[in-house]
This record gives sequence, C-alpha cells and structure tokens, in this order.
Amino acid sequence: MHRKTRQVLFPPTHDPEIFRKAGHRLIDLLADYLARVGSREHLLEWREPREALQRFLEKAPSEGVAPERRVEAIVELLGKTFVEAAMHMHHPLYLGHQVAVPAVPAALADLTVSFLNPTQAVYEISPGANAIEAVLVRWLADLMGFDEHADGLVVSGGSVANLTALLAARNAFVGRDAFGRGVAGERLAIIVSADHHYSIARAAMILGLGGEGVIPVPIDGRRRMDPRGIAGATDRAAALGRRPFAICASAGSTPVGAFDPLQEIADEARRLGIWLHVDAAHGGTALLSESHRGKLRGIERADSVTWDPHKMMLMPAALGTVMLRDGQRLIGAFHQDAPYLFDAYHPELAQFDIAKKSIACTQRADCVKLWVCIKVFGTRSFADLYERCCATARTLYEMIAGAPDFETIHEPESNILCFRHVPASLRGADARTLDTHNAALRAAVVRDGRAYLTPGHLDERDVLRAVVMNPMTTAEHLAEFVAILRELGEKVARRGPEGRARGGDDAKG
Amino acid sequence: MHRKTRQVLFPPTHDPEIFRKAGHRLIDLLADYLARVGSREHLLEWREPREALQRFLEKAPSEGVAPERRVEAIVELLGKTFVEAAMHMHHPLYLGHQVAVPAVPAALADLTVSFLNPTQAVYEISPGANAIEAVLVRWLADLMGFDEHADGLVVSGGSVANLTALLAARNAFVGRDAFGRGVAGERLAIIVSADHHYSIARAAMILGLGGEGVIPVPIDGRRRMDPRGIAGATDRAAALGRRPFAICASAGSTPVGAFDPLQEIADEARRLGIWLHVDAAHGGTALLSESHRGKLRGIERADSVTWDPHKMMLMPAALGTVMLRDGQRLIGAFHQDAPYLFDAYHPELAQFDIAKKSIACTQRADCVKLWVCIKVFGTRSFADLYERCCATARTLYEMIAGAPDFETIHEPESNILCFRHVPASLRGADARTLDTHNAALRAAVVRDGRAYLTPGHLDERDVLRAVVMNPMTTAEHLAEFVAILRELGEKVARRGPEGRARGGDDAKG
Repeated sequence: MHRKTRQVLFPPTHDPEIFRKAGHRLIDLLADYLARVGSREHLLEWREPREALQRFLEKAPSEGVAPERRVEAIVELLGKTFVEAAMHMHHPLYLGHQVAVPAVPAALADLTVSFLNPTQAVYEISPGANAIEAVLVRWLADLMGFDEHADGLVVSGGSVANLTALLAARNAFVGRDAFGRGVAGERLAIIVSADHHYSIARAAMILGLGGEGVIPVPIDGRRRMDPRGIAGATDRAAALGRRPFAICASAGSTPVGAFDPLQEIADEARRLGIWLHVDAAHGGTALLSESHRGKLRGIERADSVTWDPHKMMLMPAALGTVMLRDGQRLIGAFHQDAPYLFDAYHPELAQFDIAKKSIACTQRADCVKLWVCIKVFGTRSFADLYERCCATARTLYEMIAGAPDFETIHEPESNILCFRHVPASLRGADARTLDTHNAALRAAVVRDGRAYLTPGHLDERDVLRAVVMNPMTTAEHLAEFVAILRELGEKVARRGPEGRARGGDDAKG
Repeated sequence: MHRKTRQVLFPPTHDPEIFRKAGHRLIDLLADYLARVGSREHLLEWREPREALQRFLEKAPSEGVAPERRVEAIVELLGKTFVEAAMHMHHPLYLGHQVAVPAVPAALADLTVSFLNPTQAVYEISPGANAIEAVLVRWLADLMGFDEHADGLVVSGGSVANLTALLAARNAFVGRDAFGRGVAGERLAIIVSADHHYSIARAAMILGLGGEGVIPVPIDGRRRMDPRGIAGATDRAAALGRRPFAICASAGSTPVGAFDPLQEIADEARRLGIWLHVDAAHGGTALLSESHRGKLRGIERADSVTWDPHKMMLMPAALGTVMLRDGQRLIGAFHQDAPYLFDAYHPELAQFDIAKKSIACTQRADCVKLWVCIKVFGTRSFADLYERCCATARTLYEMIAGAPDFETIHEPESNILCFRHVPASLRGADARTLDTHNAALRAAVVRDGRAYLTPGHLDERDVLRAVVMNPMTTAEHLAEFVAILRELGEKVARRGPEGRARGGDDAKG
C-alpha cells in the first residue's frame, strides 16, 4: 500500500503551480529592483502614518480574487505594492537603524524555511534545522572563546536575548525558588552602563525589578562604562536595600558603538561574585575581524552574551542569539514539564528540543540563513564587510571634521557616528536652538527621502546619528549624503524657530 | 546630481544575479518537491540527534566556495540538503504538532520580506509593513468584537503573546510601581485552567510569580475550565497571601482542543475585578467559521487575547498576535524612553512605532504573509480549511471508536484527538503497561517515519495525540494512518516490557 503514489489534492492555498508561477515572476521583479536600486532618487516615499494606513485600509475580504487572477494578485501585492511602500535599504544613502542590509541568499533561505516550516520546539519535527542550530551555536561558542560546556540558541532578537540572559542570571541567583515561591520579597538589582540599550531596562521591568533596580555606572570620555564606577553602583544598590545579581556591559553600545572594557568589568564581576552579561548585539561581529576583535577581549569570561546576526552579519530579521558559558544555566532558566512536547521516555532528546531552553515555544528555523551564507561566502566575507562599514564610518567622520558647518562629537569606534549640523547662521546659538535645529533637520531628511539617518540623544542633547549598515555605501555616496544634509539643514535654518518646532513637515517647501 | 544613476557595486553577498539564478532554480525545486509529496513513503527520515549533528558538524569555513560554484552551492544546500533533512509536513500523514502546513504564497511573502528587511520597530523605516500590521490588527479586533479602542500587535508566537498580555495585566494591577520600585513585595497570582499551556506558567515564572503563584481551576468532563472552581482558586491564592491579577482561559486547550466557557469565566473576572486573558492561540481561527464561532462566545469581554495565525491560519512561523480590548494598556505595559528610536518631536508617530508596545525591538514584518493570503484567498478559504481539519478529526474519532484495538478518550471539539492503542494482547493490562505501550508506539511511529503524531498526557496517563493540521489529509489517508499505528503497535506489543522500556529504537526490526 505504501509504495504507490498517494493522491494529494491541493487546495488553491497550497497549489504547487501557483507557487511556481508567482515565484518565478517575483524572483525576477526583486532581482530587477535590486539591480536598479542606484537609479532611484528616493530611498523612501514618505507618507504620514494615517495616510499610509488609508492606502491599505479595507474590511477583511471574505472571497479573495478570482482563481485566474491569483498568481497576478500575489505578484502585484508583493512585488509592486509592498516593494514600493518599503524603505529601500540597499540604496547606498541608507545610513539608518541597526538592521542589516540583507545578503540575498538569506532571503532564499527564508523562502525555503517558510515553505517547509520546520519549527524547532522539538527535535523530531525539525531534525535538520535543530542540527544546523547546534552547529551554529558551536561556531559562536568558538568565536567567543567558550568551551564545550557552552550552550546557546537562536532567538527573535537582542531584546529576547537580553531577557533570556537576565532570566538565567536571576534564576541562578535565587535558585529553585524561581520555580516555586517566586521572587516576591527579593529586592534585586542589575548594574548597567549609563549607555545601555533600552531592552536591558525593559527586561528588568518585565522581571519585576522596576527602574529603581537598574543601577547605572558612569561612562568615560569615550562613552565606555568606567569600571571604577561599579563599586559606587553596588553601594547605591545596597542603600536601596537591593542585591545586584548581574553586571551588563555593552560591546558596542547603541548610542555611539563604544566597547566597554570587558576585562576590567569581568574582574569586578568576579570580585562581587555576580553574573557578567555582555550585550554584543551590535558589536559581536567584530570577533570575526583580526583588526577589530581586540575590542572584545575578555568576552570569554562573560556568563552570557547577546549577539544579533540580524545587525552586522547581513541577516534579515529575525535572527538574534544568546550564548551561555555554562550551558546548564540556560536549561536552568526554564526547567519545567510539558508532556505534549517533551518525551519523558527519551530524555536524551531534550537537549535538542529548543523549547526546553527558550522563551518561545514555536521557533522559526532562522538559523538556516546564516548557515547557508557562511557556508557559501565564508566568515572572511563577513569580516571584510564589517571592516568596510567601520572604515566608511571613519571616512564620514573625516568629512564631517573637515566641514565648517558640521561638528564632530566623537571618533567612531565602529560604524556608528553621532555629529551635529551647525550652519553659519546658528554659530554661537544656545544648546536648545541647536538641538531643535538638528532634530528638525533629521525629520526633514526622512520626509525628503533621498537619504536616511537616525536621531541621537547624547547627554540630553539632540544630535544626528549615522550608522553605516550598507556595504554598498562609498565615499562618493557619503559626499552626496553630506550635501543633502547641508541643503536641507540650510532650508530648516532659514525657516527659523517656528518652522523648526513644527519639525520637517514642510522642508521640501 | 541626484537624477543620474548612482553607481552601486554589489559584493557577492548582495549580487542581484546570484539571487536571480539561484532563486529560479530553487522555486522549481520546491514546486516539484511539493507536487510529488504524495509519492513519498516517508515524511521523516529519522536520525538520532547526535547522528544528525555529525552530518552537519564542521568548523566555520573561512573562505566559502569558489565564485563560480556559489549559485550551485546555494541551490544544493537549501533545495536538497535542507529539504531532505526536514519533516515533510505537506505529506497527508502528518498529524502532528500545532504548527501550520503553510500556504504557499506565505513563503513568497517571507521571501520578499527577507529581501527588503523592513523591520517594524519604528514606522519610518517600515511604513508599508506598519500600515499593513495596523490593518491586520483592525481585522482581528473586528473578529473578536472589540471596538476602535482595541490595539494589538504581531509577535513571534503564543508564548510571547501570553507573556505580553500578562505583563500588561500585571502592570495595570500594580500601576506605576512597575516602572519605578518594581513589584518586589507584591505577592501576586494568576488563575488558570488545569489544562493551560505551559507558556502561561512560564510567563508567570518570568514575571517572578513562581509556580506557587499559578493557581489551577479544575476542569469538567470535557476538559473545560469549570467556572465554579474559580472561587476556590481565589481562596487558595488568599491562603498563600497572594493577590490574583488575572484569569487565563483557553480557546482551545493544547491537550484536547477544548474551549473554556468564556461567558461564565468573564462573569467571574468581572465579579473579582481582575483581568481576563484568553489564550486562543490555537482556536482563535474558529471565529472565522459560522459553525464554530459560537465556541468563543464571550471573547469580546476579554481584556487580552492571544491568537497564533501560525497555528490554524496556514501561516509559517513566526506569526503570533496579541490583542488588547483597551489598547492604551498595551503601551502601558512598556512605557519607557529610548531617544534613538522614538522621535520626541513627533509624538503622533509613536502609536505606529511597534517597539513602543512590544517585547521585541527589531520586528520582522511577519504580518505581510497573512495580509497577502487573506487578500488573495479571502477569509472564507481559511474558514473552510479550519472546518475541514475539524471534520477530519471527527472522521478519525469515528474510525478509532469503531476499531476493536483502539480506545477513544474524548470526542474532538476541534481538530485535536487523544486516544489509545489497546491491542488484544494487552486487553485488561494495568495502567502502567498501557501507558508504556502507547508511549513506545508513538516513539516507534516517529522512528518508522511513514506517519507522524504527538504524545499526549492526560490525567497522568500516556496517550496518543493526533492533530489534524493538514488540509490535504482525507479519510483514505486516515485509514492508512490507523493501519500503520496498528502494524507498529502490534510489533511493539510483541517485544514486551523490555522492548517497550527501550522505546521505539528497534521498531523497524
């Protein structure tokens, strides 16, 4: 019976020929789109949110489109409507948020993963992906200098990675009560850099510590955590009646890409006998580079590390990772029973069952895209492109430093650069005026759409913040970028205080 | 300057022609694979985890493959190596975990999303996807009977949805202290069905309640939460010195797909003045069906609802949702500042900035796949396939009920069916022997690979659990499924106690 071909009737939703026809057309549309990205004047067609919403708003259709229109509809909606409503990140004037300008085979990996849907909660329904994730975890452990006792997992991003690490740290600190009586009555704290990512404080809030339980350590002149400030932070925690259970360092920090001195911080963590977590969501990729990896010296002493391949490893979201030097502490963060998931008769499978050690249960096989890209291009390609992005940020710094109407704030340690526009008409203006001017200029850039950068906020001052995420960005493109900032900045300055307060709404005018 | 075509030099990782060539070949491989899924004898080629790991284990390659081999390598790794190592979910004898057998255009949507990478933390870098998500949230709110004050978001799955909802509930209960002093000193509890999904208890553990703070309510004969038990649960919470802040109901439950009586539970929640959360991760899709939606009567009174389109809406992972009847409470769960993300000069944008109301910061545009599938096929297609899966589970129930060597345990309320194999040789055997037999049979099925089902555990008894996730499964396939269970079950029974204790390792022999 089992040898003959089974009849399978595909509903239209699962029809292989709809997939084939729409798939080929979409591949060509996307390839053409990318090949022509340099001929676009705009990387973003700005619309106010309510206007964008109106373009898509309708009642949920009960019937869909006619059968003979389905392939066309899929191609239109994805390859045209959706593409044209998106930010065009491969455009070389994208110097924006810390999300990757993705490598193209990663999109093909996500196609395959979504087609097969091998979710990773338990090994048996996803043996290939779970083996690939285990290999990836070994690669990351080796890079971090961890031994075979390390374990880790792919998560949806840095926020969940930081939450997972702090959960493991908290549960290691309070012990079995985490699963029994809970932590009510425990007055806990974590020690962070003043420049920590907001997800660290958010994780502390989720865990019930409150903002008061997040104790900042001052930063030095290069905006790195100053390890000499840790003792003061523990004193402040003690004064609040709180016990710190972890120190969280950054490698590189979100505001300026600074790398905290991990060796000295690890010494302090050892002295205090508490957990060291390193948020290397952005900077972990430096470990691949001979010339940059020194910035992470000491990471091998961390108890846990966050690293997002969807930042500097060219991976589309979502692909974060969390690694623990002692892998048992990862399972220790979650130990629980769920009989419909875990086979009590085969406990040796459990370490390959992702849900045993993850906040998520259903886990998309996000590991596959990084595996395929590393196999095809090698780690050296990733190191090269990381170095290229950092070098481009340095070039931008030099352009800014040499321009009379811009002001540098820091030398870039990686690929993040904060700076200010100070046109001749605002030279000598007060801080508030310059803040408003730079914020209005940034809003004007977004609404203009020819280039993109993010807002920065350092020491309560508004600044411009460019992050070189795009390996296609060259010095020639940077010159164009600076020219656009100058052009729009002068327009914004001419509008004066009232126009600035309104933001960039009429910067085109 | 801006009108001329900009020169863009693509590194091989971003080369449009590598994408085009590998993409076309992959589309054909996947379409052919799907068209032939019925001719496969096995839906899984079982390997022990360590053996699977060995197949993939290697040092991270520094150099990758030669340039002229790259397209071939991408196609080989994804279209062959990875496909052959996966569970073949479209195979009609897949009756396994609650993850979707995905609709094919959803894979094309994920291709497009990963190609463009419009991450949704802030509106301005993802205007299209954020508008689409807002539309999707309106569709879900309408289905649930919520008004325009409702808000929600796409998350990575039910676990994060449940955590988000309980976080909002906790923060609404304790007020501003959640962001200030934290919740140390608060002895809190949640009230759950005895058949709650483990992610509810896990969320409580993350929030610091401990297992003791998760108070179960007994279930009735159909395994639904018995609302008359809620008063007893609040008494038990009080005896522990704990204040309950939420009741969590299931619609459908994970063990058997039971729908808790939401009206009566909502009455109790109102009487107690506490939050009602409905975990409709699996059963929310019933809202689309005229004949099934009555099971969710009362959901419009919930404060929050979890619903995973990556379960019964044919969506590949990851695509969960969480909805709040009062949308302000969603932002209230997370209120925080992050200047590099949120533009203080344009606060009206904040409600379109996903990160303001999400555990994740970087958020993949997972909403796009559901949007495109609903536009193309209409909600009616989803309702039809949901009804078909439930009807198929009913057919399986009738087959089991009519077979002398199988035992039914419950009538299916949706598409989940637990049952037992009791061959003639084990009739009258003690409970422990039957438990071991059924667990060993399930392990044997997995290792045999011709069919797939999950383990169940009801009232401390091991059972078989089939979930009809595949709309291609017909009565003829079910007959084949039952025949395979019978064949392997008799083999396992012949092996006797020692063989059963070893599990299914040699069930083929």
